[in-house]
Amino acid sequence: MRILLIGYGTMNKIVADLAVEAGHEIAGVISSSQTDYTAFESIDEAKADVAIDFSNPERILPLIKQPFTTPLVVATTGQKEEIVAELQARSKAAPVFFSANMSYGVHVLNQLLQSALEQLGDYDLELIERHHNKKVDAPSGTLVKLLDTALDARQGSYPVYDRSSVSQPRSVDEIGVSAIRGGTIVGQHDAIFAGHDEVIELKHIAQSKDIFANGAIKAAESLINKSNGFYDYNNIF
Amino acid sequence: MRILLIGYGTMNKIVADLAVEAGHEIAGVISSSQTDYTAFESIDEAKADVAIDFSNPERILPLIKQPFTTPLVVATTGQKEEIVAELQARSKAAPVFFSANMSYGVHVLNQLLQSALEQLGDYDLELIERHHNKKVDAPSGTLVKLLDTALDARQGSYPVYDRSSVSQPRSVDEIGVSAIRGGTIVGQHDAIFAGHDEVIELKHIAQSKDIFANGAIKAAESLINKSNGFYDYNNIF
Amino acid sequence: MRILLIGYGTMNKIVADLAVEAGHEIAGVISSSQTDYTAFESIDEAKADVAIDFSNPERILPLIKQPFTTPLVVATTGQKEEIVAELQARSKAAPVFFSANMSYGVHVLNQLLQSALEQLGDYDLELIERHHNKKVDAPSGTLVKLLDTALDARQGSYPVYDRSSVSQPRSVDEIGVSAIRGGTIVGQHDAIFAGHDEVIELKHIAQSKDIFANGAIKAAESLINKSNGFYDYNNIF
Amino acid sequence: MRILLIGYGTMNKIVADLAVEAGHEIAGVISSSQTDYTAFESIDEAKADVAIDFSNPERILPLIKQPFTTPLVVATTGQKEEIVAELQARSKAAPVFFSANMSYGVHVLNQLLQSALEQLGDYDLELIERHHNKKVDAPSGTLVKLLDTALDARQGSYPVYDRSSVSQPRSVDEIGVSAIRGGTIVGQHDAIFAGHDEVIELKHIAQSKDIFANGAIKAAESLINKSNGFYDYNNIF
Repeated sequence: MRILLIGYGTMNKIVADLAVEAGHEIAGVISSSQTDYTAFESIDEAKADVAIDFSNPERILPLIKQPFTTPLVVATTGQKEEIVAELQARSKAAPVFFSANMSYGVHVLNQLLQSALEQLGDYDLELIERHHNKKVDAPSGTLVKLLDTALDARQGSYPVYDRSSVSQPRSVDEIGVSAIRGGTIVGQHDAIFAGHDEVIELKHIAQSKDIFANGAIKAAESLINKSNGFYDYNNIF
Repeated sequence: MRILLIGYGTMNKIVADLAVEAGHEIAGVISSSQTDYTAFESIDEAKADVAIDFSNPERILPLIKQPFTTPLVVATTGQKEEIVAELQARSKAAPVFFSANMSYGVHVLNQLLQSALEQLGDYDLELIERHHNKKVDAPSGTLVKLLDTALDARQGSYPVYDRSSVSQPRSVDEIGVSAIRGGTIVGQHDAIFAGHDEVIELKHIAQSKDIFANGAIKAAESLINKSNGFYDYNNIF
Repeated sequence: MRILLIGYGTMNKIVADLAVEAGHEIAGVISSSQTDYTAFESIDEAKADVAIDFSNPERILPLIKQPFTTPLVVATTGQKEEIVAELQARSKAAPVFFSANMSYGVHVLNQLLQSALEQLGDYDLELIERHHNKKVDAPSGTLVKLLDTALDARQGSYPVYDRSSVSQPRSVDEIGVSAIRGGTIVGQHDAIFAGHDEVIELKHIAQSKDIFANGAIKAAESLINKSNGFYDYNNIF
Repeated sequence: MRILLIGYGTMNKIVADLAVEAGHEIAGVISSSQTDYTAFESIDEAKADVAIDFSNPERILPLIKQPFTTPLVVATTGQKEEIVAELQARSKAAPVFFSANMSYGVHVLNQLLQSALEQLGDYDLELIERHHNKKVDAPSGTLVKLLDTALDARQGSYPVYDRSSVSQPRSVDEIGVSAIRGGTIVGQHDAIFAGHDEVIELKHIAQSKDIFANGAIKAAESLINKSNGFYDYNNIF
């Protein structure tokens, strides 16, 4: 398939490399950087089979406020509500795919977490993530997604980010959230269920950013055969 | 409820302690050891509300080859097929519960493994367990159960116990099985799914044998209200 | 040896059980609780071979402000500076042993951490601990000890307890500190060194409080043969 | 510095990329492959400041059987004894560096293991490694190195690779060795010390092969200022 890249940072270059390796073609790019690809200014202009975005809200929001019919995979994090609202409006005229985390494995982790939440209702839940020392936000977007899953499943629960400032036992309604930062760690997420004398853990370890690019390419491969509508990992395959 | 203990080893004593702590009563024991409880020779003789077994095939098989109507929880490991066959025959006249692993958390691990197997069909699976240095069998009964779950889900797959003796890449059909032994480790089981640049892990850690006794007591509490039939963790709650 | 127990909570009872199991004798107890042992009010009064304390600052401080000559093992946490100062004064007349964490394994973890700090000077360090949901303080006393070791080794470093409230990359001077709480977890401590594409981790997992009692008994067994002075895990063996 | 590459596989290309990124220059290559670099047939011929080898015994052995004076870093695994013997002979005329594992972090893990072995003499030791599903040998060269460290420290100890075929408790002289294979896992090594109710773990996680190339480049940077002799991670810095 012919792919339009939206953005031209590290992730877009990985998408380009892995896509070409998988037999696809790069139709062009929407970016303010100088690149070797044909430059475009709007999504449909490239006449690509699919557009894959890894950019930022400032780049993607203006693009999706205009009408388009090219199938679109959006991987931008930040301003999620606004992006999803725009994509849902556009999804009447094009198949669009959005995931706060493009890794299929992270999606599976979230599914397993949901299942564990149903079965381990009275176990204490704690969430931990690890990322590299350049990351500015904490906790990660993926952890926020896992936390949302947990908050939805547990009425009255709330996140706790710091226990050093209080001196009291853990409430059953707490969901502990910890963010580890160091080196070049790509990403790790742990969900820890602790009960009476037993602990159940779910863990996802990312070894490279390839997993996000591969997820976006796989979603794109599926999306080009879909009818117009809004898709995520729960209904794309 | 009034509980008949079958066997009088470490696990039976923990059952007795935790049951009494939870407000139950010990009706007696079937054991060749000298105990402080009334000794019985068959299950119905004690007129207990429920019998909880943690013994061995030599003890439990003769007991369940005789007819009985007392609800029965069986936690013996070893000779599983024969025990299950007898219990299924008896289950016309009594509610019976059997689990190769009495820990509710291990049951949940197995459920999560099943779900992960469905979603991660092309990820390599490896299973690891850890136990104390006195354990004579390897891998553990729980790992064998997890392995059965995996072998059922993956047509053509087979376990590999030792990779030091061969020099070849891993086949996709392998399921690696490793048994770690040391100190007084109560029990840990890990399922590792490894894909392209990502790993998903499921882990269960036991901190004491209380989890098996608690599981048996909870199953018993539920079993005494059930109609005759064969129960396990999939249909007891 | 004949042991005087100071305090009569969970830890003192474990000390009593494990000590008797190891062939020792309980000479009595200093406690406000009713016990089966002879009650004493000062350390020397019991004429024991050694006194083992697991109490609190309110209990131990008045006792060590009085002169005594009985070898003394102190495991109270809290008000460490004051307790150590008093013990150092008393150590002219008696061998005394103090450790903020009575587990020998935790001592070894701290030694390994020290060695890793020397060799991994430019790796980011993060510390994590896990404990049960009843624990009121965070981070744990043991983590504070590990953190002290790290702060001493790294000029200009400082602990960071919460990253959710700031939006900036990690400083090289940060030492992240996270406290996980849940279920009945006895205790786990992790030191994570993250560098360029590699991570080195040191971990200690406690499975029961026996490790603290066993450590105190072993220290006591060694202490009764020592000359007067102040001992800890660095000079007792 | 001007670097001669010995071999031209994946690792040599990573060395070239990271070396150029760090301001070094590639003087040429010894390889049977067609490359963009000047081809040489012997080590001194390139008049480089240093030669960095990542090849195989067939490639490196003939080269080091000839005399040379260029500083040389050797990272080939396999036929270790023969390679080390030749390098020791050559080290009278040139500074040479050899490590069975070029990762500095793995070297530190081995140092920490040595220290732990001294302090945890009566804890059971188990070693586990994880690698990708294309790896043909098991256990890994790094694990063999860790095992050697342990066997040296523990008189009478021996490795156990498979516990599924025997039915007996663990001997105190066993050192369990497990090899996990799956996906694209770069490499993980764990040393587990299990005692009475406590476990101490040492872990090294590699995220990419950069760690081996970076280690070789760092060793080379140090080696060019050394006098003739045989160096490894214990005496290079």
